[in-house]
Amino acid sequence: MPVIALLTDFGLRDHYVAAMKGMILQINPKATLVDVCHEIGSQDLFHGAFVLRQVLPYFPPETVFVAVVDPGVGSGRRILAARYSNRFVLAPDNGLLTLVHRDAELQDIRVVENRRYFASTISSTFHGRDIFAPVAAHLSRGVALAEFGPRAQQVHILSIAQPVRQPDGNIAGQVMLVDRFGNLITNISELDISAARAPRRGKPWEVFLGDRRIGPIQTTYADVGPGEPVALIGSSHLLEIAVNGGSAAEQFAAGAGAAVQLR
Amino acid sequence: MPVIALLTDFGLRDHYVAAMKGMILQINPKATLVDVCHEIGSQDLFHGAFVLRQVLPYFPPETVFVAVVDPGVGSGRRILAARYSNRFVLAPDNGLLTLVHRDAELQDIRVVENRRYFASTISSTFHGRDIFAPVAAHLSRGVALAEFGPRAQQVHILSIAQPVRQPDGNIAGQVMLVDRFGNLITNISELDISAARAPRRGKPWEVFLGDRRIGPIQTTYADVGPGEPVALIGSSHLLEIAVNGGSAAEQFAAGAGAAVQLR
Amino acid sequence: MPVIALLTDFGLRDHYVAAMKGMILQINPKATLVDVCHEIGSQDLFHGAFVLRQVLPYFPPETVFVAVVDPGVGSGRRILAARYSNRFVLAPDNGLLTLVHRDAELQDIRVVENRRYFASTISSTFHGRDIFAPVAAHLSRGVALAEFGPRAQQVHILSIAQPVRQPDGNIAGQVMLVDRFGNLITNISELDISAARAPRRGKPWEVFLGDRRIGPIQTTYADVGPGEPVALIGSSHLLEIAVNGGSAAEQFAAGAGAAVQLR
Repeated sequence: MPVIALLTDFGLRDHYVAAMKGMILQINPKATLVDVCHEIGSQDLFHGAFVLRQVLPYFPPETVFVAVVDPGVGSGRRILAARYSNRFVLAPDNGLLTLVHRDAELQDIRVVENRRYFASTISSTFHGRDIFAPVAAHLSRGVALAEFGPRAQQVHILSIAQPVRQPDGNIAGQVMLVDRFGNLITNISELDISAARAPRRGKPWEVFLGDRRIGPIQTTYADVGPGEPVALIGSSHLLEIAVNGGSAAEQFAAGAGAAVQLR
Repeated sequence: MPVIALLTDFGLRDHYVAAMKGMILQINPKATLVDVCHEIGSQDLFHGAFVLRQVLPYFPPETVFVAVVDPGVGSGRRILAARYSNRFVLAPDNGLLTLVHRDAELQDIRVVENRRYFASTISSTFHGRDIFAPVAAHLSRGVALAEFGPRAQQVHILSIAQPVRQPDGNIAGQVMLVDRFGNLITNISELDISAARAPRRGKPWEVFLGDRRIGPIQTTYADVGPGEPVALIGSSHLLEIAVNGGSAAEQFAAGAGAAVQLR
Repeated sequence: MPVIALLTDFGLRDHYVAAMKGMILQINPKATLVDVCHEIGSQDLFHGAFVLRQVLPYFPPETVFVAVVDPGVGSGRRILAARYSNRFVLAPDNGLLTLVHRDAELQDIRVVENRRYFASTISSTFHGRDIFAPVAAHLSRGVALAEFGPRAQQVHILSIAQPVRQPDGNIAGQVMLVDRFGNLITNISELDISAARAPRRGKPWEVFLGDRRIGPIQTTYADVGPGEPVALIGSSHLLEIAVNGGSAAEQFAAGAGAAVQLR
């Protein structure tokens, strides 16, 4: 029962995701299909890269991830089939692999070119159905990665804002994503924080969103009262700013790009 | 092929639901995963309790329901693993079980404490992935309920508005939920109505939304003309107010809490 | 592992879809459930008919499609069980079958009447759970179509706007649907275009949205610059108007019904 996990920006009101699933099941009726997410922001490559990175380690080895956020469909952009940390990932070569590539172990990576594993007719605008789905189904049936095409010599990597250690010892980062609860997920990782000694000996870090003091780094939402803001290391090992029982995004009118500082 | 049915308020645009599914499939690759609902209103315990109650009897015996609407994650709130009417339910002890507890047969209920069945590292903010998912997967593999922890002596129950029989014989209730179609689902059940004799001998009940007369209790939407309001006993055995081919919530600008009366 | 593919306008925040799935799994635990779409516009029969038409050919033979967009539930409307191009389709007889009926090969069609395959109690407002789901499950277990009821003598067909060849040789059509990306999908098919010779010998067609010139028919989104409009034949073999990296629906404030012309 091989797992094929789908991640797209196709949304849920059109036929696109289902057409991919039908195509997969025609080729591998034994596949277990799992929806990772289809509400990736339209053509939002960072969002797609983030979700893919977050889920990859939690799926069984040999899972085939199919990631289709593909504004360049039908143009010359390549499609990559890779093996990272014992899972397979299929994605356009447009940056979607950025975070998996940074954090997982690359074992092999191929340019998908072998039309033998594509649909018999290929549209110019829906490679999800006509290329990604059939290739994923064949991968899940055990076709070797090398069968799909030659080794890729490079991977397109998104340029992503990095947190910066400032001269005064502060760490300056930013909000990268807002989740469903309005939690502000930043680009400052647990490692960034533990690698940097606190600015003032013996004093804990204080978290600021813009000029607004949030407070020290807590453990969980309920460490503050209802409706109060809290900074904590979230389940993705990243600094998050939340509001207990509320939405930090709403309360602070903040979103991706907002400045966050550890002082 | 044990069924694991997931109900959360995690929404569909983040990685949270998929991380749970990956974790489950790592432990029990044979599980059949079913999404009950991930669009429970953010931290809306009544909504979660209602949906859980509505679906439980329709799933096969031995289904494992995993219900995660969990504003108190990481605080001291307990996690319960229960057996109701031959199905399993995992949920935080925060009221999510309220309606299942009221309407289904409780067969056993445990406080989940045995860390042997948790993930190896446990975040403070995402017990869905680190505790609920692995415990559900082990349950679905046949681990006995008693293995997970000691019997729970009590269950947190939400205080829910009840319909009231008034001195004049009328029944006064309220809207509890608005569904996707804009139907107003009330807290007045078919049983409440059949248990109360109509106020005026031989006259059928008349349904009012606030001061607005809706009419008698009909059988189905098409019992009134297009665009007209209708009161009926819905598929949940509760009094509903709808508009044939339209949205009662929009037409009457009404939502949860709106007064409903049977006169 | 028979596939049962569900298409409804039930949305994802209520219990309706899950109740259907539970019911199916009680009767056929081996069914592979696939969500085609549950975000069909509320009671939008054309949207449902379109999505059903788009996915049917991509699913494995013997797939059972269950299509429930059913404003007439509980009234006298019939339920049909049909076999088209080696797949089964269950739907109310309200026009949902229109496009499959036009484009796929009808092999058999029955009026669903045999209560032996229904739930033991049948609500007046939720036939999805009480009739469609159990009938689909029995179909997927191999019960013969003829078992469910007598042959249907007619099928309700939606009246759908057709493109028109105008006296001056232009083709006049309209936008039928807007997809998640804001692409405007028209009722002018690839066949309509190839069947009509271009108006001016040797000159390619020019596409207009209302009075706005979009340009010639291109191959893919990236054939124009970012933010620029493009007309192309989409993956459904229909003329589409899109914006590369943007939303044509937003940029032109256009939706279903907007006039489109090939000049």
